[in-house]
Amino acid sequence: VAELLLYEAARAQHTFETIRPALAAGRIVLSERYTLATLAYQGFGRGIDLGTVRSLNGVATGGLKPDLTFLLDMPEAEAVGRARARGPDRLERESLRFHRRVRKGYLALARREPRIVVLDARADRERLRREILARVRLGLKP
Amino acid sequence: VAELLLYEAARAQHTFETIRPALAAGRIVLSERYTLATLAYQGFGRGIDLGTVRSLNGVATGGLKPDLTFLLDMPEAEAVGRARARGPDRLERESLRFHRRVRKGYLALARREPRIVVLDARADRERLRREILARVRLGLKP
Repeated sequence: VAELLLYEAARAQHTFETIRPALAAGRIVLSERYTLATLAYQGFGRGIDLGTVRSLNGVATGGLKPDLTFLLDMPEAEAVGRARARGPDRLERESLRFHRRVRKGYLALARREPRIVVLDARADRERLRREILARVRLGLKP
Repeated sequence: VAELLLYEAARAQHTFETIRPALAAGRIVLSERYTLATLAYQGFGRGIDLGTVRSLNGVATGGLKPDLTFLLDMPEAEAVGRARARGPDRLERESLRFHRRVRKGYLALARREPRIVVLDARADRERLRREILARVRLGLKP
């Protein structure tokens, strides 16, 4: 619960000091991980009630939601291998079972929200880049 | 909002690692400031919605509430003077107007909850000690 609240504290400062002013200035904001990650890691991974996580996400962001989310998905063993190779953080050091819950959570959330685009993270990097750009441009059409 | 979430993160760790195990071991726990302080400072002082603060208090403590709360009250100018003399923290450095809102908030909350005992903090220290002890003993009676 303390971990969840620390992530939300960081998110509140990031949202109110960086993201909202950038949006107000008409910029496009790309953020690596946002409220969806907290639902997946602290909700599905840690087992904290999803309603609680959603409510804290709302407090931390003042209700701000992304227009589009890209979920770069791959089998958890491979993802953990990648993370370990570059030096894992607190969450990345968790068990494979934890990461399986997180991945299942992400995919369950993606099935319910059309704004979440699931991409195969094992695909060629250049192909992924083009796919993401095309989706973003589609979303920017008036 | 980030400040509020940081206080709640600290409270969650303090509650789950220190307070709850002590209560489970049958100890009496005395804590200087708890959820009421967050309602007064971040709710009334900072102007964050009281329902939001209450809900975060609930998440951080898992619903744990003190049996008894002592509010050591004095005029805000005098309290700020005391704090400045010993080196004020982030909240104590706030304006007198801020501290007026906090004090009003504390007193309004105390009027609604019988478990909050308001004491005059300008009273003699020994008299305050005796008054607090008497109240605690009253509360401990089976």
